[in-house]
Amino acid sequence: MRYHKVPDETIRRLPVYLRGLCSFPNNGSHSISSQQLADILHVKSPQVRKDLSYFGDIGTPGVGYDIQKLTKHIRAILQLNNVHCAALVGYGNLGAALLKYTGFGTFCIEINTVFEKDPRKIGRVVRNIKIEEVSKISSLSKRGISIAILAIPAAESQDVTDKLVNAGVGGILNFTSSYLSVPANVKVINIDIGVSLACLPYYLPVGA
Amino acid sequence: MRYHKVPDETIRRLPVYLRGLCSFPNNGSHSISSQQLADILHVKSPQVRKDLSYFGDIGTPGVGYDIQKLTKHIRAILQLNNVHCAALVGYGNLGAALLKYTGFGTFCIEINTVFEKDPRKIGRVVRNIKIEEVSKISSLSKRGISIAILAIPAAESQDVTDKLVNAGVGGILNFTSSYLSVPANVKVINIDIGVSLACLPYYLPVGA
Repeated sequence: MRYHKVPDETIRRLPVYLRGLCSFPNNGSHSISSQQLADILHVKSPQVRKDLSYFGDIGTPGVGYDIQKLTKHIRAILQLNNVHCAALVGYGNLGAALLKYTGFGTFCIEINTVFEKDPRKIGRVVRNIKIEEVSKISSLSKRGISIAILAIPAAESQDVTDKLVNAGVGGILNFTSSYLSVPANVKVINIDIGVSLACLPYYLPVGA
Repeated sequence: MRYHKVPDETIRRLPVYLRGLCSFPNNGSHSISSQQLADILHVKSPQVRKDLSYFGDIGTPGVGYDIQKLTKHIRAILQLNNVHCAALVGYGNLGAALLKYTGFGTFCIEINTVFEKDPRKIGRVVRNIKIEEVSKISSLSKRGISIAILAIPAAESQDVTDKLVNAGVGGILNFTSSYLSVPANVKVINIDIGVSLACLPYYLPVGA
């Protein structure tokens, strides 16, 4: 972590800004105002200015942000200026869908390694990736892979997490319903699909 | 919405509490302390007490919460005391994985309807569900389905969302990368897998 006291919510919005910048219609202008950026992202413009101010102010009052410069700036903050390779652990239904997911490309992140414990799947080649057994996780540090995606049953998640951490993984996207215990220097981002869906009925009219 | 000023973060934790209560080892005790509940969920106990206090205090000081009563209470708050049927829109890789996802059962939510625009998939039967064409979304209100899961390309998401809202859907789990514009009485919960993964490199050591 190279910046201090930046809220996770701000970091969370930066990739959204980045995607917004990438899709901003090229109308000949080189700059974008915080209001235009806010409009694309459906947030308020003071929010955009506050988020970006954490990293030094690169906007020009009355003009806005230079699109190319801001894009580069956000990529640098997020360390997305180089391609990151990620390891997928678990080639079940969700894992298979994640491997085919096209939404990572914008962010220069690519799944290039897949681990599975099911012997029937180990050795199979999908998208030019040979599925490896989970014990091979220990080789991740040698391969320079620091990001992992966990799409395995909850019961196995802590054990696999420990293996990933021992192999030098510093960031885990956790699709299991388990809390993962990790050292302070490892970041876990949880996507709990069941919990997200379970919140919706609360917001429905009574008896819906 | 039947309670006022309850933060979304609190609502978001209630299904996690519920899952924790369901998996709490039955050691003969009928009650659970806020500390025990906090421990299971890896939050602080004042957080648990504060979250639950929004809905009237049902704990007993020095004793804790009656497990059965609290489970029933949370189910009632979340409107999860009856089975909810949900419609899945999009039977691509992610949609197919979501249909097989086993994490919804704890919460009494069941996908029983699937819509797709690809004519090659329409009519196919998966898990006893006949895939229907997207134009049939209009019949959702007649079927009493108020929850939908969106797993389609971003470009089509607003159009399908409008159809869902017109059909009386009040809660949408959005897996697309698009912002969905909906009336104030409709709740959207976003799961942006790409953005979640794109945040991780920020937390890695420089140059990792």
